[in-house]
Amino acid sequence: MSNTASSSSVGKQVVLENRVEQLDASEDAYGGVIVEIKEAVDPNVFTILLRASISKWRQQGKSGVWIKLPIELVNLVEAAVKEGFWYHHAEPTYLMLVYWIPETANTLPANASHRVGIGAFVMDNEGKVLVVQENNGAFKDTGVWKLPTGVVDEGEDICDAAIREVKEETGIETEFLEILAFRQSHKSFYGKSDLFFVCMLKPLSYDIQKQDSEIKAAQWMPIEEYAGQVFVQKHKQFSYVAEICLAKKDNHYAGFSAVPTTSAFAAKKNYLYFKKQDLELEV
Amino acid sequence: MSNTASSSSVGKQVVLENRVEQLDASEDAYGGVIVEIKEAVDPNVFTILLRASISKWRQQGKSGVWIKLPIELVNLVEAAVKEGFWYHHAEPTYLMLVYWIPETANTLPANASHRVGIGAFVMDNEGKVLVVQENNGAFKDTGVWKLPTGVVDEGEDICDAAIREVKEETGIETEFLEILAFRQSHKSFYGKSDLFFVCMLKPLSYDIQKQDSEIKAAQWMPIEEYAGQVFVQKHKQFSYVAEICLAKKDNHYAGFSAVPTTSAFAAKKNYLYFKKQDLELEV
Repeated sequence: MSNTASSSSVGKQVVLENRVEQLDASEDAYGGVIVEIKEAVDPNVFTILLRASISKWRQQGKSGVWIKLPIELVNLVEAAVKEGFWYHHAEPTYLMLVYWIPETANTLPANASHRVGIGAFVMDNEGKVLVVQENNGAFKDTGVWKLPTGVVDEGEDICDAAIREVKEETGIETEFLEILAFRQSHKSFYGKSDLFFVCMLKPLSYDIQKQDSEIKAAQWMPIEEYAGQVFVQKHKQFSYVAEICLAKKDNHYAGFSAVPTTSAFAAKKNYLYFKKQDLELEV
Repeated sequence: MSNTASSSSVGKQVVLENRVEQLDASEDAYGGVIVEIKEAVDPNVFTILLRASISKWRQQGKSGVWIKLPIELVNLVEAAVKEGFWYHHAEPTYLMLVYWIPETANTLPANASHRVGIGAFVMDNEGKVLVVQENNGAFKDTGVWKLPTGVVDEGEDICDAAIREVKEETGIETEFLEILAFRQSHKSFYGKSDLFFVCMLKPLSYDIQKQDSEIKAAQWMPIEEYAGQVFVQKHKQFSYVAEICLAKKDNHYAGFSAVPTTSAFAAKKNYLYFKKQDLELEV
């Protein structure tokens, strides 16, 4: 926001020196502008500022217009929508609205489409696997022993999420080894899709301290016993994963390792997951 | 909505037979309720209905309350937020608000956190790979030849997205073979994370018909020439992928196959990706 628009007397100051004040905006890398409203403004004043700003951005040949409204400024949402904006995405603390100035079809990036989860296959040297029963969820009261699972947080690496979830649910310390498999499923949540990664981890401790709120029971169980459960045998997804785990015990299955790299353009650290041992690389 | 609340004379009819009308809601599988408002209602009436409904749901021991508001009913957003609701997620046509009735910390599921993309490695029998130069984006005017890439649509399988993007950008028909590697990166878009899958595809046609809007040029290029580009050599992420592609040419790298399965609980079709040839399975 301009200082003017965010001051309490903004209403009187909209027109200054025969010109209409405009919203402060920063430019994005795709010919658009980003407006982040941080302080209260009267909705009618906001509408005037928005119209003047869009008119200017149109003259300047701008394309997409992004407005980020904190939830405290919910009273401006209707004004923006009335000016032609629509929702792009929302998080608990803010709503992101967008508008497309050109006559052409918009090329705005899509919203996030997937949630990401992990299942942790933690096997000790004797071929025992760490399994749990949960207090809630689809497996509640089924008696099925399952691998610890959890959701990957926004900004969290899959390999770190697996270590965190095992520690939270069972108290066991682990080291990440490999991605053994992954599953993509759809319409898991309001039309969103889901990616679930089966991670193999090496235990660094053995004394289970279960999390009481989520976990009903936890134990080390022979892998053959885990794989032999009726539920696992009956459902292909689970039996495939169990077969992979059994193959892993006999050391004739190779998954993807997590190899740290940096992105080409932003020099951000990230992981590339691939079958490292098939390549002759210094990593 | 109840018929009452959605009628034009709803204001007068909120109190009927000494009781306050409530919002129509369906129950979710986690002890919560879902309200989908479909028709116009006065914001003040909406507030009254919402308060009465929450009071009832509290007595019933309900936990999460979901309200889905189409963008046409943007005038109700402020009323919901004033009653303590916050944003869960949004799509162009609607906003999903949530509220948590119990005193305990909420266990509402997280919003989608990742966008998913694909890169397509299409190699012919002579070791030539399908490469493109793009009109826009980070590689614009760099002269770098890159693999065709694209975004996986909501509800779309990764293997199908790879086939679709190659067809759209180059006109080449393909068959999906394997996932060779994937990369997870963060803060790629307003704090959201990104998963990018390198897919190997077998070409079923060879005559390139490029898409003019996105693609500046497309050609079949010897894999060694692709891998030898300065940009590829310079950036680890790209050089690893190039090494994998080269290994694939010599047939000493194995990725993950896409094996169709069904989910255990909903009988929905989905894919499990794993190294099929390491297992002795009938799939």
